[in-house]
Amino acid sequence: MKVRILKQIALVGLLFLNTINIQAQKTQRQPLMIAEQGSFAVGGTVITNPGTFNPSKPTAEGQTYHGDHAYVFYQIPVKPHKYPLVMWHGIGQFSKTWETTPDGREGYQNIFLRRNFPVYIIDQPRRGNAGRSTVSSKIDPVPDEQQWFNVFRVGLWPKYYDNVQFARDSATLNQYFRSMTPNLGTIDINVTTDAASALFSKIGPAILVTHSHSGGMGWITAIKNQNVKAIVSYEPGSGFLFPEGEAPKPIASSAGALEASTVPMQDFMKLTKIPIVIYYGDNIPEKQSENSGADGWRARLEMARLWRDVVNRYGGDVTVVHLPEVGLKGNTHFPFSDLNNIEVADLMSKWLKEKKLDK
Amino acid sequence: MKVRILKQIALVGLLFLNTINIQAQKTQRQPLMIAEQGSFAVGGTVITNPGTFNPSKPTAEGQTYHGDHAYVFYQIPVKPHKYPLVMWHGIGQFSKTWETTPDGREGYQNIFLRRNFPVYIIDQPRRGNAGRSTVSSKIDPVPDEQQWFNVFRVGLWPKYYDNVQFARDSATLNQYFRSMTPNLGTIDINVTTDAASALFSKIGPAILVTHSHSGGMGWITAIKNQNVKAIVSYEPGSGFLFPEGEAPKPIASSAGALEASTVPMQDFMKLTKIPIVIYYGDNIPEKQSENSGADGWRARLEMARLWRDVVNRYGGDVTVVHLPEVGLKGNTHFPFSDLNNIEVADLMSKWLKEKKLDK
Repeated sequence: MKVRILKQIALVGLLFLNTINIQAQKTQRQPLMIAEQGSFAVGGTVITNPGTFNPSKPTAEGQTYHGDHAYVFYQIPVKPHKYPLVMWHGIGQFSKTWETTPDGREGYQNIFLRRNFPVYIIDQPRRGNAGRSTVSSKIDPVPDEQQWFNVFRVGLWPKYYDNVQFARDSATLNQYFRSMTPNLGTIDINVTTDAASALFSKIGPAILVTHSHSGGMGWITAIKNQNVKAIVSYEPGSGFLFPEGEAPKPIASSAGALEASTVPMQDFMKLTKIPIVIYYGDNIPEKQSENSGADGWRARLEMARLWRDVVNRYGGDVTVVHLPEVGLKGNTHFPFSDLNNIEVADLMSKWLKEKKLDK
Repeated sequence: MKVRILKQIALVGLLFLNTINIQAQKTQRQPLMIAEQGSFAVGGTVITNPGTFNPSKPTAEGQTYHGDHAYVFYQIPVKPHKYPLVMWHGIGQFSKTWETTPDGREGYQNIFLRRNFPVYIIDQPRRGNAGRSTVSSKIDPVPDEQQWFNVFRVGLWPKYYDNVQFARDSATLNQYFRSMTPNLGTIDINVTTDAASALFSKIGPAILVTHSHSGGMGWITAIKNQNVKAIVSYEPGSGFLFPEGEAPKPIASSAGALEASTVPMQDFMKLTKIPIVIYYGDNIPEKQSENSGADGWRARLEMARLWRDVVNRYGGDVTVVHLPEVGLKGNTHFPFSDLNNIEVADLMSKWLKEKKLDK
């Protein structure tokens, strides 16, 4: 008899858990209410070839070529917050960074639309849908994915990190590797930041969300354009901008030495006027390690902290969050698409609220 | 007194017209109710390099490369129709084809979401966001836009066609030219149609909407995959598939001779099992013309009609619509984004309804 009652209690408990689970799924499955969505090119340049265009025998003579723009897909939810989020991918990546996660869940695009932010997603000039580059390129299919697996801290190939927030099925890894796309020509920091700045001129005040390589380009964009009202930067790589004469020494790592960059003081001071938060994930070694993929991030995290201290000494508002220190374990180089990305987004939302950026 | 009454009637009339106008605008501005949206890679192949991967000194040895997939962005509205629309761009183009028009209005993506169709938009392998090509490529920025202006029948550069359904401001032309992006390597018809077929295997029965170069690839995809339930093809170019031994002679044009393609009878017969509609726009010359940009379309329209007759003789259901003949004037090579694209979409909706494809 007791056993039967216990079984019934267990059954009720299971049903209850199941209800919660379905409820949670339903909450996630509310329709997205999109007031407006679309795409556009922004920034860029025009090559005008000398000569006269002959429509009967067309050659390049007298023709034009529009290139080096960014491509942007945007969505504005109903009842939008004041400041849109502008999301900018990292190296070898494109808009996919912010869309569906490799294991098929919602990424930052949907998560923050649901939180009432307009979302603008960039393909930077010469990348993805913004492939019309003004410079020549030679692109070869060089196998490199095991290297990225390590550099992006999913694990040390072929092993996953024990606590990694990454689904271990082959379909996920397939999607993950296919979320890369090459650059068409060199990455020209001036070209990419000009296009990003043109976007902020077009849409007005907004919050820039960067990842990895766009981290450094994000600081430059904020110097170029006062419409950058705040920056949320996930695992910025190189390009921390110190005032001239105040750069720290390069930081050694088994991935190579990480050098600081410098800008004139009046440019640097612009970075002290906006709130900035920087997040790094887990499995970053504490001391120099032979795992060069991971070790580079130790140097970058250290540099980010040095930079925070200098910006804040000049009156700035930079926060560096090492996610394991606030209880989020196992995050890769892509915290916003990791298995715990809702919690990662919650942290970001909390920061935006503290800074009154979610009105 | 009479004058005053007439004035009042006129005023009421104006108010009424104004109300209709605002009503129409409001209808267009209703929020999009999206039950689900996201992106994924589909199809493709994997290069596995021989050797052993050394994480300390990574080279291509022992590494993999996932490439030649298509990239797909999809949205499913609430209360969706049974069959999604799969939209596939043409040559030199990408997903932008179906998004915001060059002059900033809604394109087919939004229009058909509003009409309750799930919409899947393809970047074909080696194009746009699906840039991870398994073959090497050398890409140069060759000025070519005046040529496309002519081939796409906006006009005969620098003149616009008198009746053209294309906004004549410079911002529109800027967006139009920036909606191109290069191919990374050769366009391999087998690679592109394999990826498109993989998409139909993944999502199930759906309607394929093609444009220009994807027209020919669309016929092949339908032969490869029975989940292609119907095809709507805007201005298909080359690649009309006749039964072996029944190809018509090449059709001369000042853009070069247009040749028919052939397939074995059993493949051809698959094209007789699904409804197909083909649309061509305006400003296609009636007789051979020295305007080679436009003249190629005369040949293609003629070939489309020959093909229709053969497919229908074998029991098929192909309709060819030359838009000016049904009262739509001034359409370019991109009817779905022209100024009258709502009317163009209405025609398509009518056809889908007739074929019971909008349940």
